[in-house]
Amino acid sequence: MSKYLAKRLAALEAYVPGEQPQDKKYVKLNTNESPFPPSPFATRLARQAAAGLNLYCDPECRTLTEVAADAFGVKAEQLIFTNGSDEVLDFAFLAFCDETAPAVFPDITYGFYPVFAAKDGVPFREIPLTSDLRVRVEDYLGVKGTIFLANPNAPTGVALGRAEIERIVAANPHNVVVVDEAYVDFGGESALPLIEKYDNLLVTRTFSKSCSLAGGRLGIGFASPALIADLKRVKYSTNPYNVNSMTAAAGVGALLDKEYFESNVATIRKNREFLTDALTALGFDALPSSANFVFAKCSDISGEMLYKKLKEKGVLVRYFDKARIREYVRITVGTAAELEALLAAIRAIKEGK
Amino acid sequence: MSKYLAKRLAALEAYVPGEQPQDKKYVKLNTNESPFPPSPFATRLARQAAAGLNLYCDPECRTLTEVAADAFGVKAEQLIFTNGSDEVLDFAFLAFCDETAPAVFPDITYGFYPVFAAKDGVPFREIPLTSDLRVRVEDYLGVKGTIFLANPNAPTGVALGRAEIERIVAANPHNVVVVDEAYVDFGGESALPLIEKYDNLLVTRTFSKSCSLAGGRLGIGFASPALIADLKRVKYSTNPYNVNSMTAAAGVGALLDKEYFESNVATIRKNREFLTDALTALGFDALPSSANFVFAKCSDISGEMLYKKLKEKGVLVRYFDKARIREYVRITVGTAAELEALLAAIRAIKEGK
Repeated sequence: MSKYLAKRLAALEAYVPGEQPQDKKYVKLNTNESPFPPSPFATRLARQAAAGLNLYCDPECRTLTEVAADAFGVKAEQLIFTNGSDEVLDFAFLAFCDETAPAVFPDITYGFYPVFAAKDGVPFREIPLTSDLRVRVEDYLGVKGTIFLANPNAPTGVALGRAEIERIVAANPHNVVVVDEAYVDFGGESALPLIEKYDNLLVTRTFSKSCSLAGGRLGIGFASPALIADLKRVKYSTNPYNVNSMTAAAGVGALLDKEYFESNVATIRKNREFLTDALTALGFDALPSSANFVFAKCSDISGEMLYKKLKEKGVLVRYFDKARIREYVRITVGTAAELEALLAAIRAIKEGK
Repeated sequence: MSKYLAKRLAALEAYVPGEQPQDKKYVKLNTNESPFPPSPFATRLARQAAAGLNLYCDPECRTLTEVAADAFGVKAEQLIFTNGSDEVLDFAFLAFCDETAPAVFPDITYGFYPVFAAKDGVPFREIPLTSDLRVRVEDYLGVKGTIFLANPNAPTGVALGRAEIERIVAANPHNVVVVDEAYVDFGGESALPLIEKYDNLLVTRTFSKSCSLAGGRLGIGFASPALIADLKRVKYSTNPYNVNSMTAAAGVGALLDKEYFESNVATIRKNREFLTDALTALGFDALPSSANFVFAKCSDISGEMLYKKLKEKGVLVRYFDKARIREYVRITVGTAAELEALLAAIRAIKEGK
């Protein structure tokens, strides 16, 4: 830290993304990426857009907005696009949290939430998950704060149903409830239809996982026109041209190529069941996942040890050095071949090889 | 504004980007874009990257960093890449401004500076340009604030020399000086070599103008390793994957294709002289520009009127409804054909047609 850094940031601890080691080729199951390339149509549109990069991208993302409004059955003014869903979350912390509306989220959830709060200098409060790592809805009724709920939750993969989310939204009319649906396409029940009914609900999504566009950076927020206008005010005060032309075009392609999307999601769901069953057969305790990853622990090896031994064998999974979840690893659902490689490595580790 | 917006943002007035009307095809000389497409090599690399978008981009931008370090003759730890240079400026306001180090910049400069300050809730102070719209170096010696200087300045196009910048940097050892060199490639003298000598200097650049990548969004910051580490702490607390894979690849291509870059810059400089001479011959008073635009006024027509009449004739230029510069329009230096169209339209307007 230089002597010039503003004092309010002195204690800021940045988010640590999943590792991307370059020393060798890994079976990469650590950052919840899709194992499938982007839709060929998305790729084609992105490539076409490359020729026109000398002109600014459209800050309003008009074409993408039109296509998304149609795909999701919402109005254009209920949408905002961002440079990955991290950015719409960042905007939400800035726009909707302050001393009178501290951020409130589970103690075990997306690790970026406390970082956003710290960066923006807004207070936050963590509500512990239950002992079996579930969100207890009752803990979120009338909490006097801006609620951030990843649903399905990360890194657990456990999802609340829409009725449960609605209870929380309805019980907090004076505060915004942000439902971070990064993983919803893999089996969660989306809160999206509720934006018509509740003006305090913001639903965020990403094109990173189910649309295979992690490297393109495209996030989306859905809410009442008034909340979207607030977020756009922040966007136009931060980075109006936040979504580049190629990514906006790729997003159009991904949304229009529904067949490809659905086929990939179905494969991931099938592979997730296979992985969950196989881990259970190997003595693991796996949480019921609605996401594209499985959070599991094994009584005879710690999360850290399993992570390290798997890495030695060329398989990357994610381990969190954090109270209550040190026994676990988070495993991204890859292709069948990747999962076979993972399982073979686990068997070898368990056999002491 | 919704009732949920944080009170501290209630008065926030967002930046207004240059208009992008869709009603017809315009000669577009209003947002300082390059009239030339990106380097074919940049385009090719961006297109190749599209196939791998299912994987996250590299938050460290390793390849781009290596190529840029070589191209600019700096060390990797003296560099940060961002989603356009607006983002590195945004990070700088957050990292280096507070009550004890208010932001300080000219009254007439890039219109985003006061918006960043307002969003981050940091105080700012504007120092008037001289009556002929120049930065007076003496006004910036020991100002007790974090200084932001666009050099060449926008929208005037007038540049300070490196020795003048050095006087300012040397006279403010207790505060950061940010030199925003978005337009420096068109004739300014870069402060970049000074980062070796001064640990309080941040130089920012963009790939938008001289590299024809406005729609790709790529910015860069150069500074001492300690300042860069501060900015990276903010980046990793905001959006670690801020530069998408395609844009990072395009940046590599743009940096390596030096011949294309130099040829385009030479053409713009030649066209700028042509435009300045032609405007002068038409009775305009044009400021001496070191950028890819010309800021000019004409005694017999206001800036607003000229802007409006040009728009009617299908030519877009930029007019700023702001004290001291209402007589002016800012005209991007386009191709020879675009400038001929502009000049024909101006002649017709002056003849009352």
